[in-house]
Amino acid sequence: MTNRINSKNRELVERARQVIPGGMYGHESVALLPDDFPQFFGKAEGARLWDVDGNEYVDYMCAFGPNLLGYQHPVVEQAARAQALLGDTMTGPSEAMVTLAEDFVGMISHASWAMFCKNGSDATSMAMVTARAHSGRRKILVAKGAYHGASPWNTPNLKGILPEDRAHIIYFEYNNLQSLADAVKLADGDIAGVFATPFRHEVFADQTDPSADYAKGVRKLCDDVDALLIVDEVRAGFRLTRDCSWSLLGVEPDLSAWGKVLGNGHPISALLGSEKARAAAQSIFVTGSFWFSAVPMAASVATLKLIRETDYLEKMIAIAERVRAGIGEQAAAHGFSIRQTGPAQMPQILFDEDPDMRVGYHWAAACVRRGVYMHPYHNMFVTSALREEDIRKTLDGTDAAFADLRQALPNLEPQTKPAVLARIERARAA
Amino acid sequence: MTNRINSKNRELVERARQVIPGGMYGHESVALLPDDFPQFFGKAEGARLWDVDGNEYVDYMCAFGPNLLGYQHPVVEQAARAQALLGDTMTGPSEAMVTLAEDFVGMISHASWAMFCKNGSDATSMAMVTARAHSGRRKILVAKGAYHGASPWNTPNLKGILPEDRAHIIYFEYNNLQSLADAVKLADGDIAGVFATPFRHEVFADQTDPSADYAKGVRKLCDDVDALLIVDEVRAGFRLTRDCSWSLLGVEPDLSAWGKVLGNGHPISALLGSEKARAAAQSIFVTGSFWFSAVPMAASVATLKLIRETDYLEKMIAIAERVRAGIGEQAAAHGFSIRQTGPAQMPQILFDEDPDMRVGYHWAAACVRRGVYMHPYHNMFVTSALREEDIRKTLDGTDAAFADLRQALPNLEPQTKPAVLARIERARAA
Repeated sequence: MTNRINSKNRELVERARQVIPGGMYGHESVALLPDDFPQFFGKAEGARLWDVDGNEYVDYMCAFGPNLLGYQHPVVEQAARAQALLGDTMTGPSEAMVTLAEDFVGMISHASWAMFCKNGSDATSMAMVTARAHSGRRKILVAKGAYHGASPWNTPNLKGILPEDRAHIIYFEYNNLQSLADAVKLADGDIAGVFATPFRHEVFADQTDPSADYAKGVRKLCDDVDALLIVDEVRAGFRLTRDCSWSLLGVEPDLSAWGKVLGNGHPISALLGSEKARAAAQSIFVTGSFWFSAVPMAASVATLKLIRETDYLEKMIAIAERVRAGIGEQAAAHGFSIRQTGPAQMPQILFDEDPDMRVGYHWAAACVRRGVYMHPYHNMFVTSALREEDIRKTLDGTDAAFADLRQALPNLEPQTKPAVLARIERARAA
Repeated sequence: MTNRINSKNRELVERARQVIPGGMYGHESVALLPDDFPQFFGKAEGARLWDVDGNEYVDYMCAFGPNLLGYQHPVVEQAARAQALLGDTMTGPSEAMVTLAEDFVGMISHASWAMFCKNGSDATSMAMVTARAHSGRRKILVAKGAYHGASPWNTPNLKGILPEDRAHIIYFEYNNLQSLADAVKLADGDIAGVFATPFRHEVFADQTDPSADYAKGVRKLCDDVDALLIVDEVRAGFRLTRDCSWSLLGVEPDLSAWGKVLGNGHPISALLGSEKARAAAQSIFVTGSFWFSAVPMAASVATLKLIRETDYLEKMIAIAERVRAGIGEQAAAHGFSIRQTGPAQMPQILFDEDPDMRVGYHWAAACVRRGVYMHPYHNMFVTSALREEDIRKTLDGTDAAFADLRQALPNLEPQTKPAVLARIERARAA
């Protein structure tokens, strides 16, 4: 188990250290993960992933979200390939852009228009600028600890960031209407927009669902002061429902930011908006060299069609709930108390009595060694491509990982990575 | 000529108006262009482009830069396709990321590391944040009118933008060392970085080259105050030389931002840096859902190899200079005085005695009607894929367009689009 081959990964890590700061950066860096997590991957198909040494995994990260319907989904890839043979990045957009906007807007109740971009951060930043252009006001309300991207106004790390970059951001407590009302009061009439994630999904912390009362309260507060309500769907979009996630709570935002799953792995994100926000969106200047490329748009048209016309969602939820139930029973059988929070299809698994995460880290690493890619501190993502054999492999692996953990428990080394300890501290304080 | 079919384009423009604010946005919008410019394209290959109605063009915009070696370049597409069959957006990067960083850093004299992203704006914003992280200082110096992307700190349109977004940006005159020295003085010791484009390439204006004395002076001023020099190669990269553009002037920056051409149309951009800036780059947090996708990296590895091992550059320059010379002779023969500025492979063509651009607009539209896609106010881009027949078609088209213009000249309608007039005004003031 521990004799897995990892020579190619180690070689690449060494080479990367020479030519990439820190060897890797961003959300796919394994710097904060146990050593068993490979950094470099060679292949992906369906629900499976292979690292550069050929070790195979049932993948519960899905590229941190984008893999909704299965890596290399034949229908999506065929659409992408057909478009690639015509043209991708051209001197203007293709017909696929119009079709995609029509199809997308047709699926999302609150939306009457769409603008496409590349990064989730592009979409959330465009939402912020649009909200300010709409009213000419400045303050943007954001839940404390919520991740809305990695631009200067929202990156969680303050290195190189100035107070002015977030001078007009006001923070409030998620799922706490009083805290939001206080923030609105603090804005003193100068409020442009309020950001909301569909549910609370933060690293190193349990996930929590908003109540319908909360969501409706946010909508009402926004209406009272004529601020735009922005739902950030980048992480959760199309994993909870086929409409905007807060439609499940009976609330329609004015703007919604989408990314990750839109092209099932092809690079594209989007800002959608209501009629009310159209003029403001039209007034701003945003663009990018590859925002109008045709291939990701053709892939997105195909992805949205599959979202509309297949039972991917019901299948994904059913599978995810089976995996969650199985892991819950295993944990209990092995005498562990765990918290599985958030929707089963975007699970977070944390252990009780694990203040420095040494327990969760050991279990996740033991899963990885057994070919089940589980993440110890970031919410995971389930793909609808999981099959019976994947579920079997998963539950065999997680069960063995609990047994491994039981045996190792008395001698677990304390968590030593300072960056991990700092993140745990930060999550606890939030 | 004027009876070209454009029904499909008109239909798409109508449909787009319903579901996209303004029908289109960003740099590929034709809102400021003559009506003959199609908005939607169906196909691209080599140096040719077809609009959705099947009208064929020799393309002098190259997707606003990305098409360096020819649309659908077989070698690049084969590398992309081979990688796509393995995996693209996965739970971590692929070997291609390391190879690309090694190859790229090996080509750029000043660079010892690379970070990859999606938009040109990502790379320039990362440069800004890295410069601030490096020294802990705040001020960033930017040439007046220079385009470095469309983020809140640099978008040319102030709708939705706050004074705080650019509170610590100081503007100076390009190619004017005294103006730069004044800006440095104004920064009063609080200076983090200085941006420079390889040459001055602004819309609605003649392009100008910096002198070597200027470039060396910028380098010296940066060294004197320990500010990082950032060359923004997003637009000009690999069209002037196979190294950083200012290497032609004997100057090495600390950071360089790249995009557009890197994957010959595949979506990828990059920040490169010297050893001195490595720790700062490592300290910041930046990321994006698709930044580590393997296909654009495999395409970039293939593109860089072609850049290193073929005579694309010499060929491109030779062709571009022939086209420039041909257009110059034609203009003179038809009695027009034009200014062709900037490198021939990134040409800007403006007419003398054309205060409201009606003359340039008519000529560019006449070219477009004859299958030669020329832009009236944005610098153009030449691809190395142009062949003899393309050059012939180009010069036949441009000659006929001059004749057309000569005939139409007495009765040209004045420029009426307010947005165009405003841009002309702004360019004149700069």
